[in-house]
Amino acid sequence: MVYVTKGIEFSATHRLFNPEFDDAKNDRVFGKCNNRNGHGHNYRLEVTVKGAPDPATGMTFDLSELRKILEEVVQARFDHKNLNLDVAEMKGMVPTAENIARVIWKLLEQRLSGKLDRIRLFETQNNIVEYRGEG
Amino acid sequence: MVYVTKGIEFSATHRLFNPEFDDAKNDRVFGKCNNRNGHGHNYRLEVTVKGAPDPATGMTFDLSELRKILEEVVQARFDHKNLNLDVAEMKGMVPTAENIARVIWKLLEQRLSGKLDRIRLFETQNNIVEYRGEG
Amino acid sequence: MVYVTKGIEFSATHRLFNPEFDDAKNDRVFGKCNNRNGHGHNYRLEVTVKGAPDPATGMTFDLSELRKILEEVVQARFDHKNLNLDVAEMKGMVPTAENIARVIWKLLEQRLSGKLDRIRLFETQNNIVEYRGEG
Amino acid sequence: MVYVTKGIEFSATHRLFNPEFDDAKNDRVFGKCNNRNGHGHNYRLEVTVKGAPDPATGMTFDLSELRKILEEVVQARFDHKNLNLDVAEMKGMVPTAENIARVIWKLLEQRLSGKLDRIRLFETQNNIVEYRGEG
Amino acid sequence: MVYVTKGIEFSATHRLFNPEFDDAKNDRVFGKCNNRNGHGHNYRLEVTVKGAPDPATGMTFDLSELRKILEEVVQARFDHKNLNLDVAEMKGMVPTAENIARVIWKLLEQRLSGKLDRIRLFETQNNIVEYRGEG
Amino acid sequence: MVYVTKGIEFSATHRLFNPEFDDAKNDRVFGKCNNRNGHGHNYRLEVTVKGAPDPATGMTFDLSELRKILEEVVQARFDHKNLNLDVAEMKGMVPTAENIARVIWKLLEQRLSGKLDRIRLFETQNNIVEYRGEG
Repeated sequence: MVYVTKGIEFSATHRLFNPEFDDAKNDRVFGKCNNRNGHGHNYRLEVTVKGAPDPATGMTFDLSELRKILEEVVQARFDHKNLNLDVAEMKGMVPTAENIARVIWKLLEQRLSGKLDRIRLFETQNNIVEYRGEG
Repeated sequence: MVYVTKGIEFSATHRLFNPEFDDAKNDRVFGKCNNRNGHGHNYRLEVTVKGAPDPATGMTFDLSELRKILEEVVQARFDHKNLNLDVAEMKGMVPTAENIARVIWKLLEQRLSGKLDRIRLFETQNNIVEYRGEG
Repeated sequence: MVYVTKGIEFSATHRLFNPEFDDAKNDRVFGKCNNRNGHGHNYRLEVTVKGAPDPATGMTFDLSELRKILEEVVQARFDHKNLNLDVAEMKGMVPTAENIARVIWKLLEQRLSGKLDRIRLFETQNNIVEYRGEG
Repeated sequence: MVYVTKGIEFSATHRLFNPEFDDAKNDRVFGKCNNRNGHGHNYRLEVTVKGAPDPATGMTFDLSELRKILEEVVQARFDHKNLNLDVAEMKGMVPTAENIARVIWKLLEQRLSGKLDRIRLFETQNNIVEYRGEG
Repeated sequence: MVYVTKGIEFSATHRLFNPEFDDAKNDRVFGKCNNRNGHGHNYRLEVTVKGAPDPATGMTFDLSELRKILEEVVQARFDHKNLNLDVAEMKGMVPTAENIARVIWKLLEQRLSGKLDRIRLFETQNNIVEYRGEG
Repeated sequence: MVYVTKGIEFSATHRLFNPEFDDAKNDRVFGKCNNRNGHGHNYRLEVTVKGAPDPATGMTFDLSELRKILEEVVQARFDHKNLNLDVAEMKGMVPTAENIARVIWKLLEQRLSGKLDRIRLFETQNNIVEYRGEG
């Protein structure tokens, strides 16, 4: 078993707020992340797949195929997008890093079923979430 | 003469478009950066001041004072903001890194007059502008 | 279950030596880290908490609260300090990264009980310890 | 139990191909990594050992000894080398990051037996493999 | 005048030696970089262009056009290549970072004439050359 | 003319204070950097030399020789040292980054005369000084 990780980046905007909260509560809960007109990040995503390397190729997973999957599934949906308005799968959710990570997991699982081990999403260098498909 | 650089970060959203261009031209000129609902970045700003260190303190510029100036002048205006809508000084400009850098220069010059040497603005690790107050 | 990591930094000085060893043994065991007048590092600490995101906020843990806890518990104690002389909780210990990490764990556990998953302490980019509260 | 990680770097060249495949298949499977005259990387290796810190020294493992082991076992074999031609232990293998990691694990295990926890090999910042001795 | 920098990466192999030197001299002059079967690097290139931003677009240079130029001129020639054998423009030269930088400058100048300000080539994080077209 | 930069690191401790100031003034001027028992940093130094590459070797300066000079001149003096107490050349100076840089310049100039172009000293990722031998 070898764990292979591919890193990619995407730039997106978001606003953290819950439409069921009033303004005061949104401000209290989400602080400056509730800026009405949004703010943004250069997100970094690390996707880890696991498996036994194929003895003939020495590869656990073809990295150029993995990159293509990440371009189709993640970058086409999230890069240069507004996570509150432009991503169908995020509708009705607060676009926190936790929720973005769970949506990305769900989307990737359909393409990497049984091989997906964990994903890490860096909102900044200092704010990072990891999801392993638990719960 | 010693050059002293302070780095800070801010997270903001922007959309690149010129309201005087039609949609087709905005798309052609700005590509995916013209996404109607915006996208965002973790910007990194490096501000360089120059001067002879004070013999009694060994310091060219008090870095905690410089940090305070950058918090007041830059972070209070740009962090967790929408650069098209929330920053008075950017109104009427396409919020490219070039224009953000020139606006920041102008604002900092009022506080650091004669000491400001250059600023570098990283939109991503691979897109960087430098401005030295020329033109 | 989502794992959320917050990174912070602090600058500190330390000297590695055991007062029960003689000078020759301290030199043999700790090498240049036994410099009598100390040496220092920019430490980077990554603190990971785990939990199910709150459905109403999308957050596992309020990151601005976590930052405040880390400022109070870690930075107020360790930043711009001498780890041999200034930190009560380190008294009587060799201030290796291993011991610093265990002290930080113990301090954080009181504030993050049941949610703390692991901490990583980078003494340099190439010397890193991880502690998960085992033993 | 504390996990201690040491990072090192080495620069090497490799060509990915299987001599039992014909040219067309090598191109299809390995793409540009099959360039006949090779290509290269600055590899970064992170080696993690685990153990209880010695109460007298506060150290899980003497890091200067670990560095010496990594210089002898890894850098002497892999740094400024051609992984297809210069490394006896890689003979007959496609020198993918997966296979390099497994060879390094096997070599290190002889020196760090029972303490080696995992290794991570970065081929680039975005292509990373982790091996924990499984399989 | 604003200076705009684009960063890209390429992975290549090289061997430093001068065919007019004998083996002993090549070893003395180039050390481990003279490994007969080559070694390699993840090179990072930063290309800086200068100019006044266009008032209508706020851009000094269209970064997606610059990226395309760098893909055609630099990555197509140097990425996943052997710098001693695969790059026509490097023939007859020792492929040091200095010479690679001068060849890249000459190639880029034809496409960016009058706008090219300087290029920086990182062989590793610690070995960097800068060329500004002087001499 | 090509500019060649070598980066190295050293870990040191320092305390910023002027013995001619009283305690209150030292606190006011140097803030937390005046901690009586010191604090420390992982310093990064980048040394730039300039020159025309030798046509026979393609090298402006032998980088392994430059590394040796930096080990002898900089690391032997500053690494794992207390900059207030252990470095003869710093005696009587406040060990700010500005003063450390000027001392390093003076020491290097004796070995690299006429070729030294500039040095950059990173106290942290966000506090950087550059000295070019002016004044």
